[in-house]
Amino acid sequence: MISFSGTYTDQYQLTMGQVYFLKGHTHDTAVFDYFFRKLPFEGGYAIFAGLQDLLNILKDLSFTEEDIKFLGTLGLDQEYLEYLKKFKFRGTIYSAKEGDIIFPGEPVVRVEANIIEAQLIETLLLNILNFQTLIATKASRMSVQAKGRTLIDFGLRRAQGLGGYHASRAAVVGGFDATSNTAAGRDFGIPVSGTMAHSFIQSYDDELTAFRDFAEIHPNNTILLVDTYDTLKSGIPNAITMAHEMEKKGHKLKGIRLDSGDLAYLARKTREMLDKEGLNYVKISVSNQLDEHLIKSLLDQEAPIDIFGVGTNLVTGNPDSALDGVYKLSFFDNKPRIKLSETISKVTLPHKKQVFRMLDKEGNFLGADVVCMQEEKDPEMMFHPFDPLKFLSIAEDQKEALLHKVMENGKILEEPKSLQEIATFSKERLAKLPQEFKRFFNPHLYKVGISLRLKEERDRLIQEHKIK
Amino acid sequence: MISFSGTYTDQYQLTMGQVYFLKGHTHDTAVFDYFFRKLPFEGGYAIFAGLQDLLNILKDLSFTEEDIKFLGTLGLDQEYLEYLKKFKFRGTIYSAKEGDIIFPGEPVVRVEANIIEAQLIETLLLNILNFQTLIATKASRMSVQAKGRTLIDFGLRRAQGLGGYHASRAAVVGGFDATSNTAAGRDFGIPVSGTMAHSFIQSYDDELTAFRDFAEIHPNNTILLVDTYDTLKSGIPNAITMAHEMEKKGHKLKGIRLDSGDLAYLARKTREMLDKEGLNYVKISVSNQLDEHLIKSLLDQEAPIDIFGVGTNLVTGNPDSALDGVYKLSFFDNKPRIKLSETISKVTLPHKKQVFRMLDKEGNFLGADVVCMQEEKDPEMMFHPFDPLKFLSIAEDQKEALLHKVMENGKILEEPKSLQEIATFSKERLAKLPQEFKRFFNPHLYKVGISLRLKEERDRLIQEHKIK
Repeated sequence: MISFSGTYTDQYQLTMGQVYFLKGHTHDTAVFDYFFRKLPFEGGYAIFAGLQDLLNILKDLSFTEEDIKFLGTLGLDQEYLEYLKKFKFRGTIYSAKEGDIIFPGEPVVRVEANIIEAQLIETLLLNILNFQTLIATKASRMSVQAKGRTLIDFGLRRAQGLGGYHASRAAVVGGFDATSNTAAGRDFGIPVSGTMAHSFIQSYDDELTAFRDFAEIHPNNTILLVDTYDTLKSGIPNAITMAHEMEKKGHKLKGIRLDSGDLAYLARKTREMLDKEGLNYVKISVSNQLDEHLIKSLLDQEAPIDIFGVGTNLVTGNPDSALDGVYKLSFFDNKPRIKLSETISKVTLPHKKQVFRMLDKEGNFLGADVVCMQEEKDPEMMFHPFDPLKFLSIAEDQKEALLHKVMENGKILEEPKSLQEIATFSKERLAKLPQEFKRFFNPHLYKVGISLRLKEERDRLIQEHKIK
Repeated sequence: MISFSGTYTDQYQLTMGQVYFLKGHTHDTAVFDYFFRKLPFEGGYAIFAGLQDLLNILKDLSFTEEDIKFLGTLGLDQEYLEYLKKFKFRGTIYSAKEGDIIFPGEPVVRVEANIIEAQLIETLLLNILNFQTLIATKASRMSVQAKGRTLIDFGLRRAQGLGGYHASRAAVVGGFDATSNTAAGRDFGIPVSGTMAHSFIQSYDDELTAFRDFAEIHPNNTILLVDTYDTLKSGIPNAITMAHEMEKKGHKLKGIRLDSGDLAYLARKTREMLDKEGLNYVKISVSNQLDEHLIKSLLDQEAPIDIFGVGTNLVTGNPDSALDGVYKLSFFDNKPRIKLSETISKVTLPHKKQVFRMLDKEGNFLGADVVCMQEEKDPEMMFHPFDPLKFLSIAEDQKEALLHKVMENGKILEEPKSLQEIATFSKERLAKLPQEFKRFFNPHLYKVGISLRLKEERDRLIQEHKIK
């Protein structure tokens, strides 16, 4: 099937590469920044995800024989094809930690490599980081609303094809607890979850027999789906019968699942009916087109729900189908580079850069990050990137560098982290982000500024280009 | 990397499978229908895509050793695991042809297999068909608007992770001509396309030298990106210089690309400037957040555009991130099956079924499909599925069966078609669909009805269940 070889890219990377190769730029180092411009979901923050997958792919990236043969049919130069045969990514990468909280306009990843390598990996990098960051951010929004209740990803059937695989991973980075996606469970160590579908109930002549067969085979892992015929008149009464039958055999019914109707009303009624029978340990799980807004609404109504199963809206990031992350050249051939634009907000930041986050005494985020030159250790002023009237002193603030070297000459520097470790880190970081950045409506704007030196350098380059 | 083994599924398929296995249903045949309920993009039709990929995966579907080992850690039964080790899909599948025009509420695929096999493939089937049908439909909407102009998929960097791979394929089913996605080009035989990015221009001290180097290396395939500094003052004048330089060497500049600004205005100005220089053969291509509405708007303004490059909105189906296709049990253990619901529109249709499309004398679609029992050869009446007041005679109409046997006992029956053949078939079918189903605003509703026999069977089963 599909694999991440060198052809997992946009063709123009290869045509540009041929020019660089034949014009002798094979050893010229380029620096690219990955950053995004707009927060998805009208939210106040994003969760950075996908880094570990990216690094794992980069360390082994090469062209297969089939790739080279195919590229030959496109008329690429023979010498260049020989070069691609031996292609290996030997670049150095600085990055925010996977799971960290990130904001628009700040470099999240910096790639330093020869221009051919740096350019070839652009598509792959954007494809992985844009998508996983989108989904981790969506998951985080649900996690914040679920306030500790269990969240399970049910999305594979409605995912965008194979995208569902990494969606399940990213959901965990953003706070999900488990997945229905067995392949993702196997490869990423995510707890897998899943009991029964409506078709299972339909395949029996009656609901109770279906429940009974299931509970007999899975006595320790039975969540009964109760809405196939009539939730309150048939599903719940049959579930109660089953729970008592299981108790007699020394087992416990784990839960019931509601998948249609008014979930707030049905959850409340179900809880009452179960509790009256002494079944307060039986959990209530719900599903059916959930998203962060529905989860909030259900819990605002105090619906006694223990588990949320979320599908489409999680794994596709609906209603935002993509993060707008870009990858821009900032340094090449020993010179800082800039891309101009009619709109100042689209002018890129030149040079190798670092990002510092301002912290209060307890280590909580103060609401401001500053982008500066790589070599600046403690910038004293922070400027609004586009509005010259806005600046502030940050001399006294405690600062934390966000970008760390994670790959050197194509080798991963850090031990791989488990997905659970990444998720735990993300949770810790999210706890440091003040509440006003997490709310749904008009979340507070996290400031991302630039240092005086970076501002001066950028403005100098703009003038240079305009004068030319 | 990721492959389509048996674990590319929702875990509940495996837990239900264990019940079926241990309860002795290994040889009980089940029939499932794949259909969707709502047209995406507020459109009037959908393009069915993904079938050939699905069949290719099903014919080889099995569990790897690693899968079995993993499932063992989840506590599945040992005998059942032995069964899964030998798992093979041996079912029979009836399906609409890939590329055909399909509508809500009609079975598009029918799976007949033992209940464990039929259930296990549900997730995979939905994952592939839902996504490719969504994207082919989106592509078709753009293709209808582009009226013969070239359409190129640029979406991989913003695609939903690995979903981009099949998105590029589905785009061709829906009418796209080429892709930037090299891997998809290689595997699906799609023409690949791509010349240069802004970073290429930025990596030079001046635009003209960048153009010159590129044209030297790719004399027959140069599309110059003209908006890095200033489109009309720098990009186009430099492109004109290059075009003349190329002419002197016996080559021709293929085109220029506009990627920002007012594309209608810039395309018109560019055309004028090029034509004045005798460069009327140089094509104008545009990109930048295009979708079907922008394509329509640009052509309504008579912008002289030859090539549209479309990214995010194509490959993610934005603003609809998923097709709501479902897979419902209709027959099991020699009995028709039905799923009830409070809303009649969600009650499923029992039995093995066929779909007929009504045609006029020229073979064009009349605007009505009828779902009937498999054995009905020429249904005479067609009923609205939910409204008993609405029915009509179809006795005199020419009819075409939509579902064909494509797999038998796990073996594919037809020779594989090239993607281009599928795209050509889809185009032919779309030509038979009257214009009023293709418009953006309030497209005409294509009727999908049910035959008298099917209606009577469904209503009988509803009553049976309600009486129980």
